[in-house]
Amino acid sequence: MVQENGSDGARFQIPAPYLLLVGDAQSRLAAKTAVGVAHWRPEAVAGQLRFSKDAIDLGVPDMDVAAAARAGVRTLMIGIAPSGGRLPEAWVDTITSALRAGLDVASGLHVRLADHPAIAAAQRESGRQVMDVRFPSGPLRIGTGARRSGKRVLAVGVDCAVGKMFTTLAIDRALRARGVKSDFRATGQTGIFIAGAGICVDAVISDFVAGEAERLSPDNAPEHWDVIEGQGSLFHPAYAGVSLGLLHGSQADALVMCGELGREHLHGVPGYRVPDLQDCIDLNQRMARLTNPDVRCVGVAVNSSRLPPSEAEAAMHAIAAATGLPCVDPVRTGVEPIVDRLLAL
Amino acid sequence: MVQENGSDGARFQIPAPYLLLVGDAQSRLAAKTAVGVAHWRPEAVAGQLRFSKDAIDLGVPDMDVAAAARAGVRTLMIGIAPSGGRLPEAWVDTITSALRAGLDVASGLHVRLADHPAIAAAQRESGRQVMDVRFPSGPLRIGTGARRSGKRVLAVGVDCAVGKMFTTLAIDRALRARGVKSDFRATGQTGIFIAGAGICVDAVISDFVAGEAERLSPDNAPEHWDVIEGQGSLFHPAYAGVSLGLLHGSQADALVMCGELGREHLHGVPGYRVPDLQDCIDLNQRMARLTNPDVRCVGVAVNSSRLPPSEAEAAMHAIAAATGLPCVDPVRTGVEPIVDRLLAL
Repeated sequence: MVQENGSDGARFQIPAPYLLLVGDAQSRLAAKTAVGVAHWRPEAVAGQLRFSKDAIDLGVPDMDVAAAARAGVRTLMIGIAPSGGRLPEAWVDTITSALRAGLDVASGLHVRLADHPAIAAAQRESGRQVMDVRFPSGPLRIGTGARRSGKRVLAVGVDCAVGKMFTTLAIDRALRARGVKSDFRATGQTGIFIAGAGICVDAVISDFVAGEAERLSPDNAPEHWDVIEGQGSLFHPAYAGVSLGLLHGSQADALVMCGELGREHLHGVPGYRVPDLQDCIDLNQRMARLTNPDVRCVGVAVNSSRLPPSEAEAAMHAIAAATGLPCVDPVRTGVEPIVDRLLAL
Repeated sequence: MVQENGSDGARFQIPAPYLLLVGDAQSRLAAKTAVGVAHWRPEAVAGQLRFSKDAIDLGVPDMDVAAAARAGVRTLMIGIAPSGGRLPEAWVDTITSALRAGLDVASGLHVRLADHPAIAAAQRESGRQVMDVRFPSGPLRIGTGARRSGKRVLAVGVDCAVGKMFTTLAIDRALRARGVKSDFRATGQTGIFIAGAGICVDAVISDFVAGEAERLSPDNAPEHWDVIEGQGSLFHPAYAGVSLGLLHGSQADALVMCGELGREHLHGVPGYRVPDLQDCIDLNQRMARLTNPDVRCVGVAVNSSRLPPSEAEAAMHAIAAATGLPCVDPVRTGVEPIVDRLLAL
């Protein structure tokens, strides 16, 4: 998962090992970033910091900041979302203590930690980094459309929150297991925390989305795969522009279409139906050809968890028959048939 | 041109009359924003501020800041781009003097005036506004895709810089001349200076482009037209995402396709040809249908200035015959045939 190649591709490099702030999060959903990091980067997670025994347990050692510093932890990671959007005072104390104990701090919150006076002061005094991954800093890059070396696969989707991150992480892991050089390229905050690097494309000024996506998967060895986390959907009335900029900048050789069985309406967008899967494949391929005329969709990945296994299996067979593509559920079936197609390209 | 309706639609409201800073700009291109404002809002322009007689002359009275203040000018408008990107010291003195004389200052530069210590100090002391229109502030809005009342026409294009702003300003003017209620909705810095309001969509964080475009043309009277300046092109490898977010958020009833006769390659993007006009019309209509299923393209507007008049006329006839749409050059022929189509919808 660690970026072996093209460090230029990343805006943030988050030093491991991590202490994951769980705080008083009561559900896996509230702590989904921490849960994702513990699942996909267990070797990078030294411990969790819970404010009480009522908080969810990631199954890693409980630690306070002082113990983490003694254990060689490099980064306190804010793996939860605050209810109400404001930064709780208990977090501020934890964050300033971490900085003063010599840890960096990484946050994917929609508020900038560095804007809090006490955190800013602790940062200045400690000289440590505060990485607000939703606030990319430094000069942004305009897209050029110039072809890059190496191979790229991008997850696209019928909607938001249909498993694009999980699918690409699974593909990256499967490629590595086969001895293929591969990097997961993160485009959202949870993915960035898992990878330790990446760019939140939806937090980038719109003019620069394609250019920053180009930066994320730079020139690489001809047989190397960049496995790029997707965002949004070309059929989403709020976010299609983000998806298109990422599609163009990624210059994907291969697309994996992601969906959820049983979802009929776009999440949180009244009046918008989930598009037809084949329409969605066709439109993504058409739009992607602008920057890579050879692009092709190599498979469909669905979240089938709403259906009992037998119904899910039947639905996936039907999708495979209709599209002529392998259809998998990364959780239930794994992604090997898609990886087979990728390596046959 | 002034926003009569839906003031909620604008992020900036720039008080007129204006003093246009021309500085020592030697060409109409270097001063294109000032030139555009003088052309389209002559009634709002009280004067120009030139540092020497070598600078280009907009044909309006020369004034210094003190004279402008005495004449009732409300805003100093930075109508030029600095060479090298840095803010010249001579401008800083002019800007701080203007603030201290009671004027607001509006800038479309890629650097934030308010970041300059002397300008920030003058702003604090004077209590006047510094409007950096490329740095939208305040809470941004996520798109909803919900239909709005009133009618909308959006300029789209085969490339950047093909006359979308000019075309929409001409359509707005022609609608008003016919007694139709209309507002020009600006989406770039020059358009904002001309309208006195608007939003730089390419400066908006990508997540919010469609939502801010929705805000720009809010609910309105059923017979009212919002005439929305377009940006970029769906076929541009750097900016297509901006164009798509604007297309979805605008919810256009009508599209006007803009191009330039004789342009074969995208401006500044080696290896990318200008798309086929009909392909571009078809793709824009297809993508726009997501948020307005009734959208249709009502005409083609070209910049024909590279061709002699007889060749231009023949080329425009050929486009009209091939597309079945009126084809105009807003400068040479005006936009009346497109306005006829709009009003027939």
